[in-house]
Amino acid sequence: MVYEISRTAGKLERSHIRAVMEHGFGKEGVIPLWFGESDEPTPEFIKEAGKAAIDANFTTYPPSAGLPVLRKAISRYMTELYGTQISDQQITVAASGMQGVMLSFQCLLNPGDKVKIISPIWPNAANAARLLGADVSSFLLQRDEAGKWSLNLERLFSDCDAGCKLLYLNSPNNPTGWVATREELVAILDYCRKRGIWLVCDDVYGRMVYEGKSAPSVAEIMTAEDQVILLNSFSKAWNMTGWRLGWITAPPEIGLSLARMTEFNISGAAPFIQKAGVAAIEQGEAFIQANRAALKQRRDLVCEGLAAFSRVTIPVPEAAFYAYFSVEGVEDPFAYAIEILDKTGVGIVPGSAFAHDGPYFRMCFACSPGLLSEALTRLEPHLNR
Amino acid sequence: MVYEISRTAGKLERSHIRAVMEHGFGKEGVIPLWFGESDEPTPEFIKEAGKAAIDANFTTYPPSAGLPVLRKAISRYMTELYGTQISDQQITVAASGMQGVMLSFQCLLNPGDKVKIISPIWPNAANAARLLGADVSSFLLQRDEAGKWSLNLERLFSDCDAGCKLLYLNSPNNPTGWVATREELVAILDYCRKRGIWLVCDDVYGRMVYEGKSAPSVAEIMTAEDQVILLNSFSKAWNMTGWRLGWITAPPEIGLSLARMTEFNISGAAPFIQKAGVAAIEQGEAFIQANRAALKQRRDLVCEGLAAFSRVTIPVPEAAFYAYFSVEGVEDPFAYAIEILDKTGVGIVPGSAFAHDGPYFRMCFACSPGLLSEALTRLEPHLNR
Repeated sequence: MVYEISRTAGKLERSHIRAVMEHGFGKEGVIPLWFGESDEPTPEFIKEAGKAAIDANFTTYPPSAGLPVLRKAISRYMTELYGTQISDQQITVAASGMQGVMLSFQCLLNPGDKVKIISPIWPNAANAARLLGADVSSFLLQRDEAGKWSLNLERLFSDCDAGCKLLYLNSPNNPTGWVATREELVAILDYCRKRGIWLVCDDVYGRMVYEGKSAPSVAEIMTAEDQVILLNSFSKAWNMTGWRLGWITAPPEIGLSLARMTEFNISGAAPFIQKAGVAAIEQGEAFIQANRAALKQRRDLVCEGLAAFSRVTIPVPEAAFYAYFSVEGVEDPFAYAIEILDKTGVGIVPGSAFAHDGPYFRMCFACSPGLLSEALTRLEPHLNR
Repeated sequence: MVYEISRTAGKLERSHIRAVMEHGFGKEGVIPLWFGESDEPTPEFIKEAGKAAIDANFTTYPPSAGLPVLRKAISRYMTELYGTQISDQQITVAASGMQGVMLSFQCLLNPGDKVKIISPIWPNAANAARLLGADVSSFLLQRDEAGKWSLNLERLFSDCDAGCKLLYLNSPNNPTGWVATREELVAILDYCRKRGIWLVCDDVYGRMVYEGKSAPSVAEIMTAEDQVILLNSFSKAWNMTGWRLGWITAPPEIGLSLARMTEFNISGAAPFIQKAGVAAIEQGEAFIQANRAALKQRRDLVCEGLAAFSRVTIPVPEAAFYAYFSVEGVEDPFAYAIEILDKTGVGIVPGSAFAHDGPYFRMCFACSPGLLSEALTRLEPHLNR
């Protein structure tokens, strides 16, 4: 039987991350560096908070905008981190960073609305917008000969002048590790204010920086009334990928709409998971710092290793936990990722997974140094010749 | 500042359940019978399974279609319960029953598609379809003089002949407690097959019946290839409202699309919650039976009490845990629900919350007999005069 699915669902392309993962899943000796996920478990104090909340029967329907205790904890955390007063009325709890994207888009986008996404980028945001019938286009970061990524603001603005309802900015960027400067954010916010464009900032990697406490964020320069939505997740900075918890920062009036949208999507995150989120936010700083120090060593190990290979060009990422590099002489990056997986058992994903043409590959380095060294050893004969 | 939100988000009406709840929330002495939620906690064996799974680090990204162990457990459970072979390839895990609705609609509906919903009904399904731009209309159950609800199949089919892409059937029905017979389901499936209409069955209350093991379900008569989607949730039968876990049964080919849609919405339910779901499915029968026996006593207490009031007409519901009754002489049911709440502290919700005109009210009876008796005592001066 042939089923007719919706036009938007039918058009969405299969993720090349999932495609590589499914090709290699369960095969003996595979080193899986395809997902953006640490091989360390969630910190004990967060697990204990989740279990205690189950014991205390935080197992009933949550309020649509999230538990007040979590919204307050997040507003205090952001106020302190960014030096801007953020109220709990600006915070909506989401059942994952991804859900924050979808709720925001449902709240803002009409079919046909133009969305501009700064890329390369994790593809799900664009797909969520497409699912709602939006007209999505990319604006590419540029890379100099040494491999360093940058954003050409003048060209971005001229591109947006041709029509743009919503600009989607992911900084620190997955996969490149590029980080917008505060000056760039000021210019972007200023431009969006003038044009009435919604600025949606995916700040998920904001705490995973290798200099300073956090990456520059529009949170530092916006007002509560700006047409700005900030998206966050507990997944990366607190090793909580499987907990499915995130939050949205938006003008309070938009927050009311987001809470309503929540009811028609999932009706909130489990309250005991939200209580675990409170523990992460309030007691997580020591973990974040220790985790960053460990990741920095792994970044240096991987980047130095890859940079020594003759076919590889790689900039050192300023943030996030990915090495994103080009390999000379690759024609079909997806096929090459599969070939590498088959020949070496190392799972990396092609740039095509991030709406990016060219011989690019992403390798997550949030895994033990021993395994990373082993991966480099296996890759050497292929990338260094 | 005035923000322009999306047209669909802007059109969605505020839930009258939430409106009544927010009016009464936190007031001293209020008896909250507004939500469909038990005042008993989640059974211990389910909580223990969830906590054990956190300890065992089931805290990383889940597969899009759900944990294989849960999909297999559900397929075995349904196969045994309904006497139809249901494979794990037909099962997609959802992060709540509500998310099952949204994923199914995203997968099937284009803007402008006609959706027919048998009502009165919990309003969120219609709102999810509207959010996607579908053209939603209701087909009302009818009520005889004694208050008994029934479905006029001939009129339903003639209504659908005027154009229908998807028929949404909630049996056992929230709020009325009406249950479709097996013969009615056979006729509906037969009609949908002939017309190529998708039949989406909200089976969430399927185990909450007061005769037999489960309500008749299309699961008993369908094939794996039928254009049928069954929606289920762990919330009601296993007292897991806050866990946000449900499942979708669909043709395997549609399951692949549903799994993809999951990635753009939430990327799955937390794995440790899915493990709690395995415990519920595999060890939950004793609880379901004991819970039903307790609910039956409460149903009889509430229905006998309400039926004795001169202004009230109430049928005894065959399933679910709601008393849905009419009150003579009420002009504005929402205003009356607020008045009752203010004067008696009893929280009931008006039929307007279920797309239903007329002097109707829903009272959840999943709460202790003492509180239910107290609620009846407080209501008596108003409803019996």
